[in-house]
Formats: sequence, structure tokens, C-alpha cells
Amino acid sequence: MRPRSIAVVGASQRPGRGTRVIANLQHFGFTGPIYPINPRYSEILGLPCYPDLASTPAPPDSVVVAIPGEQVPALLETAADRGVRGAVVLSSGFAEAGPEGRRRQDALERLAAERGLLICGPNCYGVFNVRLGAVTYSADVAKPWPAGPIAVVSQSGGFSHYVAEHLVRQRGLGTSYIVSCGNQAGVSVEDYVQFLVEDDETAVVAVYLEGFRNPARLREAAALAREREKTIVVLKVGRSENARHAMLAHTGSLAGTAEIIDATLRQAGIVQVDGLNEMLDTVALAAAARHHRRGWRVTVLSGLGGECGRVADVADAVGVELPPLSDAAAARMRSFMPGFMNPRNPVDGTGSMYDDKTLFPQLLDTLLHDQGTDVIAFNTRATPPRPGGWAPARQFTQAMCEALRDGTDRLVLCFTSFAGADLDPEVVQPLADLGVPTLESTESAMRAIRNVRDHRRFLDDAPKTAAVFTPAPFPASGPGVLDNAAAMRLLDAFGIPLVETKVARDTEAAVRAAESIGFPVVVKIDSPDIAHKTEAGGVRTGCADAAAVRRAFDEVTAAARQHAPTARIDGVLVQRQAAGGTEMIVGVQSDPLFGPAVVCGFGGVLVEVLRDVAIRVPPLDHAQARAMVDELRGRALLHGVRGRPPADIDALADVLVRVAALARAGAGKLRALDLNPVFVLEHGRGAVAVDWLVELT
Amino acid sequence: MRPRSIAVVGASQRPGRGTRVIANLQHFGFTGPIYPINPRYSEILGLPCYPDLASTPAPPDSVVVAIPGEQVPALLETAADRGVRGAVVLSSGFAEAGPEGRRRQDALERLAAERGLLICGPNCYGVFNVRLGAVTYSADVAKPWPAGPIAVVSQSGGFSHYVAEHLVRQRGLGTSYIVSCGNQAGVSVEDYVQFLVEDDETAVVAVYLEGFRNPARLREAAALAREREKTIVVLKVGRSENARHAMLAHTGSLAGTAEIIDATLRQAGIVQVDGLNEMLDTVALAAAARHHRRGWRVTVLSGLGGECGRVADVADAVGVELPPLSDAAAARMRSFMPGFMNPRNPVDGTGSMYDDKTLFPQLLDTLLHDQGTDVIAFNTRATPPRPGGWAPARQFTQAMCEALRDGTDRLVLCFTSFAGADLDPEVVQPLADLGVPTLESTESAMRAIRNVRDHRRFLDDAPKTAAVFTPAPFPASGPGVLDNAAAMRLLDAFGIPLVETKVARDTEAAVRAAESIGFPVVVKIDSPDIAHKTEAGGVRTGCADAAAVRRAFDEVTAAARQHAPTARIDGVLVQRQAAGGTEMIVGVQSDPLFGPAVVCGFGGVLVEVLRDVAIRVPPLDHAQARAMVDELRGRALLHGVRGRPPADIDALADVLVRVAALARAGAGKLRALDLNPVFVLEHGRGAVAVDWLVELT
Repeated sequence: MRPRSIAVVGASQRPGRGTRVIANLQHFGFTGPIYPINPRYSEILGLPCYPDLASTPAPPDSVVVAIPGEQVPALLETAADRGVRGAVVLSSGFAEAGPEGRRRQDALERLAAERGLLICGPNCYGVFNVRLGAVTYSADVAKPWPAGPIAVVSQSGGFSHYVAEHLVRQRGLGTSYIVSCGNQAGVSVEDYVQFLVEDDETAVVAVYLEGFRNPARLREAAALAREREKTIVVLKVGRSENARHAMLAHTGSLAGTAEIIDATLRQAGIVQVDGLNEMLDTVALAAAARHHRRGWRVTVLSGLGGECGRVADVADAVGVELPPLSDAAAARMRSFMPGFMNPRNPVDGTGSMYDDKTLFPQLLDTLLHDQGTDVIAFNTRATPPRPGGWAPARQFTQAMCEALRDGTDRLVLCFTSFAGADLDPEVVQPLADLGVPTLESTESAMRAIRNVRDHRRFLDDAPKTAAVFTPAPFPASGPGVLDNAAAMRLLDAFGIPLVETKVARDTEAAVRAAESIGFPVVVKIDSPDIAHKTEAGGVRTGCADAAAVRRAFDEVTAAARQHAPTARIDGVLVQRQAAGGTEMIVGVQSDPLFGPAVVCGFGGVLVEVLRDVAIRVPPLDHAQARAMVDELRGRALLHGVRGRPPADIDALADVLVRVAALARAGAGKLRALDLNPVFVLEHGRGAVAVDWLVELT
Repeated sequence: MRPRSIAVVGASQRPGRGTRVIANLQHFGFTGPIYPINPRYSEILGLPCYPDLASTPAPPDSVVVAIPGEQVPALLETAADRGVRGAVVLSSGFAEAGPEGRRRQDALERLAAERGLLICGPNCYGVFNVRLGAVTYSADVAKPWPAGPIAVVSQSGGFSHYVAEHLVRQRGLGTSYIVSCGNQAGVSVEDYVQFLVEDDETAVVAVYLEGFRNPARLREAAALAREREKTIVVLKVGRSENARHAMLAHTGSLAGTAEIIDATLRQAGIVQVDGLNEMLDTVALAAAARHHRRGWRVTVLSGLGGECGRVADVADAVGVELPPLSDAAAARMRSFMPGFMNPRNPVDGTGSMYDDKTLFPQLLDTLLHDQGTDVIAFNTRATPPRPGGWAPARQFTQAMCEALRDGTDRLVLCFTSFAGADLDPEVVQPLADLGVPTLESTESAMRAIRNVRDHRRFLDDAPKTAAVFTPAPFPASGPGVLDNAAAMRLLDAFGIPLVETKVARDTEAAVRAAESIGFPVVVKIDSPDIAHKTEAGGVRTGCADAAAVRRAFDEVTAAARQHAPTARIDGVLVQRQAAGGTEMIVGVQSDPLFGPAVVCGFGGVLVEVLRDVAIRVPPLDHAQARAMVDELRGRALLHGVRGRPPADIDALADVLVRVAALARAGAGKLRALDLNPVFVLEHGRGAVAVDWLVELT
């Protein structure tokens, strides 16, 4: 990231990626030695050119590689021999390009691991360290390029450049680093994020990625970002099946389980965005708001009446509250605005704001001193005026600069009604210099406000107690489905409440079990090979006496044998008949890379038909578990509807906390856990799992 | 819309809205006489100025009004006396400005009604007839302004101008009319839409609106648009409570019931969009696709690997299918592309597409001749290059122009990865001239494709038979809740199946009714004043014999008297105990302006907790009713889940068709109708309403 000398292998006198790197290094005044390498030339862009890595006057610190993919592994071997520490591999033809490419990438990964070579790429644009002018980066970058608090990391080279360039050229902002890491054969996207969170000059890290390599590193980086109050904003591709295939073709990335990744990022305080416009606006606002502490009561001011209804709709849809204008602010506005102005939030400055130059400064001053306003969002049109044409936005800018010259504790931002067309530098730059970002489009601006607000709230929350439960040791058995006795022992060890259940190998044992539990009972087949007991005809409820239990024993074992002739049948389970309550499911799913996640949903139609589930990665504390339940669309069912009493949500949350502890203890060993159903009883009466399935890897 | 002579009242030698209109008229070469009116001047912008309307050499055809609101009613009175036919009232201070303004607007509405004056506004920018150069429009409009097939109608003056200007300046498109109609005191937004649908030069009408005035006119316009294969695209504001207040303050509009308006627009084939960027892209694509008939198999081509995953995700999220690349196209691409290229849809042209100029023309040619591709969406970066800088998009444009010179039956479009910054006119204009629009941002482009595709499918559907059911006459009684006998007669007249039900005034009548129906029966309180029988303790199910019926009679009447001491109690209803099935609700809701709509949802938790309902305005045919059921998120419940048999969806659809007929017959008289629940039985066994409530206005 901070090379002292750079060799460019595959530089050429013709335009190309390697040559662009040399031009960029020269252009941005890189002060260390630059060694073009190409046996065909003696000079490139005024620099002496060397036939190979061995002939440079001194071993280079870092090497940029722009030669055909098949030659890269051998070259990097040589480089490692010569003591090169870092390599930026621009070349394509690796994991994104079928089995042969995959083999080439494996060679690179071995080199990185065995020789300690720090490899950026392959299939990337490289790294741009803005302050050092170390542009080992192959895009066509123009000067000036101001330094600033925003870093961009992207697997896609094109996006790294387009995002950074838009922030710099249109928004008047500055960047610290631009990194395109391509296939991540060596240094992973998580490594870069961690480096940037540690970097003192960087406050906001914008990340575009297709696949993760190292979730543990990401969690570390996120924890550090939280501590240092920095913002990581991620645009993750790969929700759709088609996208997963496209990514495999692009950077050879695998996607992972979308829902588990979402939960991991959310719980780590990483801001996820849905598109590039939302990314640009969120990053710009996060940088502007990094010292904002006042609060998030947003007042919108527009000179465009049509915008007021629009922004109210959009704010409502994305979850940004626009509280009513304070009486004091409304009264003050009435004192100077024309009679037909109707002060409210959004504030409609009306056409008069354009005709009478004295009005806007008074409106702004009113809001800057309004006790009910923390954030002022000014809707403006920021396209450059025609030469000599009407330029109201420049007048507004001038008024804002005057009003903000002495600072304010409000967060002030501008936004346009839609995205498109150049922004006027005479509007954007003076505002950006005062820390006022210009966002593009109402939709994207309101999402950015929500994203940055939610991240601030995340930072302001009391630090979570990491360990909330002392986990019991995890049994070493498997792979496969645990038999019932082992499963009950495991669940019991973590204190997960199970309905009273006895194992019975024969009819009379079943009757004795039922008598000890008390009638009525439920009789279920006990077989590690039958996961869905009801579908196998293996469940009889409401067995009211010994005869019914005997009948049930015979029927369920016969049905199970017919359903699954090869299944091992251990007898039956005799259970207390549970007393109803709300039927929920609680489970654990695992992603090979991200590990386990706890899932919770309503049983029956809500989960099966509507897939109404909440998901979190462990550990969970009680408050987080309650928040998880509150995410369910059907949550009102637990709070009591249609005359039903409220359910024992605390007991359900306790089950979730315990399941999370079990999932954490079993990470790498537990493949899946299902408690289905868990009956959540009336408030104060607890919750109890009635059926369970534990599968180990 | 086509004035021959124009007076501008309130023109001035200082800049202002009236003066801008005169400048615009001169600038765009309006050929008729222009009469500035202002007693303070003798000349404005080189034209003789008249002290009042009476002194113009000839009565003007149309008058533009830019004087304070309080003077407008008197002036328009004079104008009507002088024989003026049309007035564009730019002035504010009407319905948007409190009670006094509301009175002024009432005066204008009277003038429009009584004197036949066609009033545009007040509180608007006016009308721009591009072909005639009749710019009775007060924005700062620059030349050149090309004529084209897109019309813009907006209540907001600012949006009318910004949308049209962006289409013209950035997208290289042309417009026919721009209309800002403000408060709609005279001519309504629906009148303008109808005029524009009738206009031969207009193919696409973009509408921004806050409130409707005349839904019947809108339906007529939509029907004509369907017949003439034109597209109406609407951005409607006012879903949120705050937006409704903001609109009232802006143009004095009331919002109406959002869901009923949505249903009306959707069924009329009007395209609804959520934001201005989606509006711009949908309008641009609709204009380009107006002659496209081939189909909607979309293939995406990008030179940016990172975009391929992104666009796949976005297409999936908005409902645009990207089918697999045909084998023939894949094979052809393999023949000329580098080995690491992996042909699929989205097609990743890879960095090679930039380095080797011969590749893009071949990729394009492959897709233009691929039998599996109807729509080619080319992802490009269309910002202008730096002077002398790299300009690949211009090369691609040139190749596209060559390939498309002789026409194609494919729909070809370009899109950028995000919106923002100027588009390069050397890229956009030549493509626009060939009918290839440039859309901005992946999200907005994919939504535009979906919108235009769905509209084309709407046009291609067989024309709907308007009357599908001969309605019975609607009874004249009310207001208030119909008593049970009258309600049953009404429902019966429309053939809506009701569970067998008898009215019983006393205990013994109840027993006789039960015996004639057959046990078990349900006993319910019969009172027009008790809408929610269960909550009043007024329902007993499973009455298995005469004693149970007697007990039920006493209990429900006692409970009802306690629950509602003043309620009129007519006795009880005795009903056959319905045989289960899926519990649905069917109802009618009415909007004061838009009239009735039919609502359908699942009973129980799905409707109460999740508000899972479908809504349509009558009439409905059977297929539409089935489509309505298919919109429900819980639809799988009707198709049979968890081993349940499929339900009789045809019978449910029949109930919906009959309820729609009833709603239509009762429009203006029926306030609400509830069938709750309707039991939908097993396939082939029908559906039956078990409880009902009919309320008249």
C-alpha cells in the first residue's frame, strides 16, 4: 500500500494497462524509482526499460504485472526470489476463466502463502495511494485528485474507478485510497478493509464486492471501525442465482448464503446499500456527518412545491421521520414569508424564494436556530446555469456559505430531485469545502440519511456484552443426525426447554412412560433416519389411556416401517401433550464460510407460505433476541390479537439466546438444528420445544 | 393549447414570470399577436404595452395572468366579457393558501363553469406547445427545443420543466407539449391527458400529479390510449400522511384512497412509477419501444465485469428475466473472444472489448442475429471524455450506428451503471436519432424495461368484455347498515352464495329453524347495530340439539344486550354449521371520487396481521378475479399446502365477479360490503359466505 520502488512488468511503448500505470505514477509525482520491464524496449515514457526483473539496479519493493495470465506464476516466483514484497497483478485469465485459470490462481495463492508475497489481484486495476501519489492503478486518472477521508475498495476495477471519480469530480470530495482487488488471490477484500479502518486518514470505506474470503477478518475490521467510529459501506452482489453465475465468471467468487451474510454485516454495524447511487450518497453523507452528534430530526427545505409531497412520501417509505415544524420556527417564517406560504415540514419556500433574495437566508437562519431541527436537508437544483442564465442555486450557495462560515452543530446537506446531469462546481465545491454534501435524487438522499442515522445509532448503543452465556461443551459425535437421547442431552446441556419426553423401546415401556407423565400423551416414532415424523405417519396425539398408547405404538412403528423400510427404529417417544400456545420454529443454519446463524419464525403458514423469518449470527443477548422476534412481520400474533393473551416473548428470547450459545459452541461441528415447533405459552408460562432435530457435519 | 393571439397581463420591464412568457414567445417564433398588458409601461421587450385588456387592438384569444392572486378573479371576469377563450393563471394564492385562497379559487371555478373560460392553473407555469412555439409557459426555456413524441403534464411547474429539460438536453429526445396545470381550477389534469392522447404527434404522456379531479375522464383517456397504443406514465404523490398535507399546501389537492387509485390506474393500463429517475427512463424507453413487437427476452452486454452480477441481481429483484444465452450465440462468441471469456447472459465483453476494437461490433452483430434475443441492453459509460482522453463509448456508438443503419426488429437500449454527470451528446444523440435511448442507472433501466414490457403485454391482451354480468337492480334504502333480511335479499339477487340461514325471533322459532336446517347449527345475534357479532359474545357454534339451541338463544341475546344496551335486537340467525375450508374475506370499499373497489384476502392472521389483500375496481371478469386471488402472498394456501386439498378457486373467483357486479350497480349508494368469512371449500365444492354486513350511504 506504500511502496518505495515499483517495477512494471509488461510496460510498453503502445498504450496499455502497464503503460497507464507508469504514466499515472509520473503524473502524480511518485518519488521512488520506477522500473519499466520489457525485453523489447530500452526506454518507455522517458524511463530506462529493463529486460527482466533481475536487471533492475536495485530489487523493486513492489511489482505491477501486465503480462498474459499464463506467464504470471513464473514471473511472481522470480519476483519472490528477488525479494519483491508486493505484487499488483492486472492480468486476467485466472479463477474467472474456467478450470485452467483456476489452476493458475491456485499457483498464485500458493506463492502468497508460501513466499509471503502480498498479491493484489489478479484481474484488477490495482491500488491508488492518493497522498503518496503511488498510483499502481491502471485506470485513466486525471489530475487534480484531492486527498480526503473516503476510501474505495472494489473487486471490480471499473466500479472502483467510477465511484471514486464521481465523488471527486462531481461531488467535490477527496479520497485516501482506491483499491481494486479483483480475484483476491493474495490480499483479500477484508484485509484491505482492515488496513483502511486502521488508516488515520480514512473515515469512510466504500466496498463493492462479489465474494468474501475471510469473514473473521471482516468482523475484526468492523469491531475496530466501531471503536474508531468509522463507517464501512458495502454493496454486495450475488443475491440472485444469475448473479452468482455472473460473478463466478467475473472474479471467480462464490456468493455464500445471502441471509447469513446480511445478518453478519448488520450485526457488525456495516452499512449495506442496494445500488451505486445509494452508495455514492451514503458515503458522501457519512463523511460529512462523521462529527455530527446532535440528533436526527430532519427538516426539509425546498423551493419546489412539487418536491414537498414527493420527499414526504419517500421519507415515509424508507423510514426517515420528518417531524412537524416547531411552533417557533413556523411563527418566525410567517413573519417574513408571503401570506400564502403555509409553514410546515417539508418547508415550501415557494416561488417567492427565487424572486425575493432576502427570503432564503431568513429561512435558513430560522432552521439553523430551530431547537426542533438537527438535520437540514435543502432540496436544490444543482445543474450549471446556461451562460448568463438564471442561477438561483448559486445565490443559495452563497447564502449558505455565509450562514455556515462560523460553524453549526446541525448537519446540513443538499439534495436534487433526481440524479442526472453535471453538478455545478460553483454550487457543489464551496459547500463540500464547508462539509455540506450534495446528494443526487430524493430517493437516494433519504436512504443515505436513514443509513447514516442508523449507523450512528449503532455506534451510540452501549457496547454489547460479548459472552452472555457460558456454553456447555459440545459433544463429539456425528456426522449425521443425532439419535434422540444424544440430541436431548445436548439441548438440555444448554438449558433449552423440552417438553417432558421419555424413550420407550416396546409397548409396555410406552405405557409405563405415559403413566409416569400423565395422560393424555403424544406418541412419536423414534428414529434418527426419519426427520419428518408427521409425514411418515409417525405421530399420534391425544392418547388418553393405556390402550390408546398400545395402539399408537403399533400404528406408528408399522407406519414408519412402511414409510422407510431401511430406517433404524429405536422405539417411540412418549411426550406430555403440550398445552397449545403460539407455534414457532427456531433453528440453526450454517454457511461454510460465515458459520452458523440462528433462525426464528412462526410455524405453520407464516413460515411455509410467507417465509417470515428473522436471522442473526451468534452470540445473542436477550435484548438482541427480543429485537429478532420483533422483526417478524407476524409479531402482532405474539402480542395478542383477536382476544388472545400475549405470549411469553421473554421465554422465546431465552430459547434463542441458548440456541445461539449452542450454535457458537458447535461452530464447524453443527450442520443444522431444528426446534419445530416451539410452543410459546401465555406470558409468564414459558416456551417449550416439542420436536427437535440435530445434525452434525 | 393552440392560441392564435396572446395577452400577458402583469408583464413588466423587470424580469418576472409574465415577462419570461413574452421572451419565450418571441424566442420560439410565435406567429400570432402578443399583447403585454401593464398600465405602468408603454413598451415591453419591443412590443407596445396596453394599460388593460379592453385596449388591445383585437380581443386576444388567450390571456396569461401574472398579477397578485387577489386581483385575478376580477380580471378573468373582464377577460370573459371581452371574449377571451383561454387563460393561463401563473399567480399563486389560491387553494394552496388557506381559506381565503380557497374562496378565490372557487371564484375561478365558477368562471370556468359559467362562462366557459378554459383556465390553466392557477399556481402553475402554463403550457408550451412545442410545434407552434406557443410558449405560454413561464420557465426559463432555452433553444433549440426539438419536437418529439413525448408530452409532459405536471401539477408542479418545476417538475414539468425539469423532466422535459432533462429529456431534451441530456437524452437527446423531443417533446410535443409541456403542461403545468397547478391547482386545476378549470382544465383538469385528466383533460390534458385526454387532449394529449388524442394528439397525433404525442405517443407517450408523462404525468406528475398530486390529486385527481375527474377519474371518469381519466378512464376515457386511458381507454383511448389503449386503442391508439399510447403510453401514459404517472408519478402520483400522496401515499404518506405527511405528503397529503404537503400537497394540500402546494396545489390544494386531496389525495384519495391510495389503494383504490393504484387499482384504477393499473387496470386502466396506466404505468405507475415511484420516482423521477424511473419516470425519465420509462418515458424514454416507451417512446423508443412504441413500434417494438418482437418480444421481451433481454440480453445484457457490458464491458464491465462488475456490472454483470449487479444487473443480474437488479433484474431478478424487479422481475426482468435474463434468459440463458442461446447455444448458437455462445458458440459464435467463443469463436472470436479471448479464451478466458465465458459467454453467458449478462455477456461480459471483458477488458478485451476496450483493447481490441474488432470485438464489440462482432458481439453486437451476434446479438442482433441471435434468435433468442429480443431486447439488447448495452451497459456503457456515457460521460464525456476528457479532451484528448480515452473515449471508448464513442467507438461503441459508432459501431452501433453502423450496425443499426439498416434497421432491426430488436429493441436496443443503452444504460449506465449509475445516474449522475452529463451524458456525452456524441454518444447519446446519434443513438437517440436511431431510436436507441440511453437510460441512467441499472436500477432505473431494469424498472423501465419491466414497465414498458408490462404495458405492451397489457395492450396485447384480448380486449376485455366490459359487461360480464347482468346486474340486478339495487335496492333503494339506507343510509346505514341493512337489516339481515334486506342484506340477504340483496346478496341473493346477485347470486352470492350464502350459508343456509334462517331468522328466528324467539327461542322456539330458533329450534324449528335448527330442525329444518339439521343439527349442528350456529346461532348468531341478529342486530343491524352489532357489526362484530363474535366480540359482542353473539355467536354460538356447534349447537347439536334443541336444548343447545335454546341455551344459545338466551346466551347470545343476553350477551348482546349487555354489550350494546341500546342496540335493536331482531332475534337470532340460525345457520348451517359450515364445513371448514379456507377462510377468506371479500369486501367492497368506496372512495368518494373513484367509487367502489373489490377487496379480497385471507381471513384470520393473514389479513389482520399482514394486511395481505388484493384490490380491483369493477367490473371484473372471471379471469381478472382469478388473477386477483393469485396476487395474494398467501395464495399457496389455496393451492393446497401441508397435505391439504386444493381449494375451489373458481368458486371464489365467481363470488368476486358477483360482488364486483353488486358494487358497480350500487356505486354511489353502497358505502361498504363485508363477507367475512367466506369459506372456500375443496375444489369442486364451491364457496359460501358465512357472515355479511352491507352498509349504504
